[in-house]
Amino acid sequence: MPTTLSLTIRAEVPAQPGAFGQVMAAIGDAAGEVVGVEVVRSTKATVTRDIIVQVRGDEGGEAVVGAIRGVSGVKVHEVTDRVLLAHQGGKMAMQNRMALKSRDDLSMAYTPGVARVCMAIHDDPEQVWDLTIRANTVMVVSDGSAVVGEGDLGPEASLPAVEAKCMFLREMAGIDGFPLPVTVRDPDEMVRVLARISSVVGGYHLTDIAEPRCFEVVHKLGAAVDVPVFHDNQEGHAAAMLAAVMNGLELAGKQLSESRLVVCGLGPYGVATVRTMVGAGAGEVIACNRDGAVHSGREGLDPDLLWVAEHTNPQGRTGTVHELLKGADVFIGFSVPGLLSADDVRSMAADPVVFALAMPDPEISPQEAAGVARVLGTGRPDAPNQINSTLAFPGIWRGALDCRATRINDEMVMAAAHAIAQVCRDEGLAEDYVVPSVFNKRLVPAVAAAVRRAAEESGVARIPVGAG
Amino acid sequence: MPTTLSLTIRAEVPAQPGAFGQVMAAIGDAAGEVVGVEVVRSTKATVTRDIIVQVRGDEGGEAVVGAIRGVSGVKVHEVTDRVLLAHQGGKMAMQNRMALKSRDDLSMAYTPGVARVCMAIHDDPEQVWDLTIRANTVMVVSDGSAVVGEGDLGPEASLPAVEAKCMFLREMAGIDGFPLPVTVRDPDEMVRVLARISSVVGGYHLTDIAEPRCFEVVHKLGAAVDVPVFHDNQEGHAAAMLAAVMNGLELAGKQLSESRLVVCGLGPYGVATVRTMVGAGAGEVIACNRDGAVHSGREGLDPDLLWVAEHTNPQGRTGTVHELLKGADVFIGFSVPGLLSADDVRSMAADPVVFALAMPDPEISPQEAAGVARVLGTGRPDAPNQINSTLAFPGIWRGALDCRATRINDEMVMAAAHAIAQVCRDEGLAEDYVVPSVFNKRLVPAVAAAVRRAAEESGVARIPVGAG
Repeated sequence: MPTTLSLTIRAEVPAQPGAFGQVMAAIGDAAGEVVGVEVVRSTKATVTRDIIVQVRGDEGGEAVVGAIRGVSGVKVHEVTDRVLLAHQGGKMAMQNRMALKSRDDLSMAYTPGVARVCMAIHDDPEQVWDLTIRANTVMVVSDGSAVVGEGDLGPEASLPAVEAKCMFLREMAGIDGFPLPVTVRDPDEMVRVLARISSVVGGYHLTDIAEPRCFEVVHKLGAAVDVPVFHDNQEGHAAAMLAAVMNGLELAGKQLSESRLVVCGLGPYGVATVRTMVGAGAGEVIACNRDGAVHSGREGLDPDLLWVAEHTNPQGRTGTVHELLKGADVFIGFSVPGLLSADDVRSMAADPVVFALAMPDPEISPQEAAGVARVLGTGRPDAPNQINSTLAFPGIWRGALDCRATRINDEMVMAAAHAIAQVCRDEGLAEDYVVPSVFNKRLVPAVAAAVRRAAEESGVARIPVGAG
Repeated sequence: MPTTLSLTIRAEVPAQPGAFGQVMAAIGDAAGEVVGVEVVRSTKATVTRDIIVQVRGDEGGEAVVGAIRGVSGVKVHEVTDRVLLAHQGGKMAMQNRMALKSRDDLSMAYTPGVARVCMAIHDDPEQVWDLTIRANTVMVVSDGSAVVGEGDLGPEASLPAVEAKCMFLREMAGIDGFPLPVTVRDPDEMVRVLARISSVVGGYHLTDIAEPRCFEVVHKLGAAVDVPVFHDNQEGHAAAMLAAVMNGLELAGKQLSESRLVVCGLGPYGVATVRTMVGAGAGEVIACNRDGAVHSGREGLDPDLLWVAEHTNPQGRTGTVHELLKGADVFIGFSVPGLLSADDVRSMAADPVVFALAMPDPEISPQEAAGVARVLGTGRPDAPNQINSTLAFPGIWRGALDCRATRINDEMVMAAAHAIAQVCRDEGLAEDYVVPSVFNKRLVPAVAAAVRRAAEESGVARIPVGAG
């Protein structure tokens, strides 16, 4: 599916009644959506305007521009892609936290003063956490193998997506994320490279790494370093997912421990979701993919699906997702657009909770699910209940860094999920409000505090609550 | 030698005439230098002041604090190390260059907009330079093996020094330097690690890496990546050194091409200086170390000194530095404090130019050289003519990044040296002004412009002057 483009089209239109109306009509006919208009120059003969139009892909853009050009007397001077324009020079920069304007500044930040700081760390290596950027620095790492739903684009093409994750860390949680695409696909080599640069790293935030490599890298890197290693698309997403499921079931008046959940699609998102739901004590979890239900009798399972087979589906159910859905309380999909019909949802238990996270379009559209599902969530920003790892990871990292956790464990992920869910409950849970907005100011502090407590209680915090 | 500490001592002194004078006298007797005093609380009985004192090392600090405590009626409440205090949390932070406050911001910086940016780079890899942080990002790398004159302190202890280099890049040249200590000593492994993260790197700034490893890493990494690899302690320092030599000889009324230079000390600084002086067309260069002069008949030379032997000392001079200095025009030392006497300088040709860069104290003190050397420069910030790579590297990197140079070659280093020298000539060359201040606002733009021109003329610029 083509991506949505936001174009700024500068058009000079005759200063005659109705002329601009013709331009607007032409844009609409070519399936463009006008989101803003601004006059930039006006003469007796013509008016020049910047028209901001959303279109579908390059072809949609060409159609709109062609349609405008087709209006008599109109000239198109310039077409700018707003998103590409906004990305010029990238989305992050470094800044200095100390002045460097005078000899005195220099003697503090550089020679001779800095030698004392270096010696202090040499004499007591723990001082690196106080006297350098390390304690607040997270490396955001991708190999570019699974970039924002577009697949294997390579490390350089992953950089804008990785920078975006760094922006969340900075904006939501005051964390210094540094974007680090790596040109390496072998998991052992990736671990070796990342472990070699650990001196400046407070934690590793892996993102957009394809399965099954991502599982192996998280596991091996975690064993090689003494700071948290966290995979956005696994634990980050699963924490948000669990919050949404708990709140959806609350609205349906059901307990997680007595509910049956069907998880469809078993990439990093799906497997992490299954693990998290099992860990949270879900009554019955059934995992399936295009080959049907995972059960202990199924052959040819890789280690991750073997784990899934051992920990889910105690009754050994088989069949397609449509068959498995009958009587289920919750559907969670990471599969393909349009997989489900309204009848599939109707076959579920009363008050069905549906999270249809296939990208770019959900397994069932909000229109088709309306009046059938009690709660519907998707991965899209233009519908209610968007489930996204960005709800979880800024707060999880803030909590982990604040107590210098040695890892981010299941207890911390669970605590994050509960804290996310509680924000909605405090503010008024509703069918279209089972997860808060990423811009909710209460979200990150609540998640960070809960994560920090969980880190301490589970013995992975280096600084106790109340200190530091 | 102990490092200089800047302490803030909070002392409560009886409100009696002469009492504070006793405190000041006690500090002076204990070899502390008072650089500031501030009253923080005043009652009828006592006055509490913050006294900023410079001392030599921890022992000096203890002596001063003990001396203050020894004054009758005085209480010391708190002793703070200003440099350590200023380093709390490190010296750098990340900041966002785009807003992330609204759904619209999100749709531009993150999904769905970012997918288009990732695809644009995937379709045309050159776009990574325009659409990400890469074009302005320099990795500042050290293995911690030669940290600011303190030796092999390890990668974590190098971090404050590496952060300081990043601060220079940001403050002087608007460049995003990221501090990257690496836990690896094998040159091939270091190159492999650094090459794997090149997707986000506009250039590699190596610093504080011991010889001979630094030479090998510069060479091999440069061959492995298509961005500049630059060693601060070699080319950076050599550019500043050449500027100073050219200006010193100008004052002495001599030509570089007719001058004899003695370079003493053949680590990274010395070898790079020799190469640069030979490249700049110096009349005669004699290199020596503790084993005496390097000449083509000397045995057991490593590859770097073999190069030196082949390109210097055409007359095959031998002997100690004292013998070699007789009749020389320029001395450049990276050796040991106090190596030279005033008589050594007197034995040089008329108007001797002396750069005594041994750390922490020069080969000859400014007091002893006064009236004997025509020009004296050192590595110290508290004497005129401080020769330091910080004079050169911010401008060199600005010029190299502005034209997306594929490397930083000798032509660019020479151009930087000429530009540094010219700043002094334009402003009034003098015996105590052969290099400008690092805070001179004209310095970086002048160096950057000259380096960019040299890059284009030598065929390593990807963007021609005038474009981009």
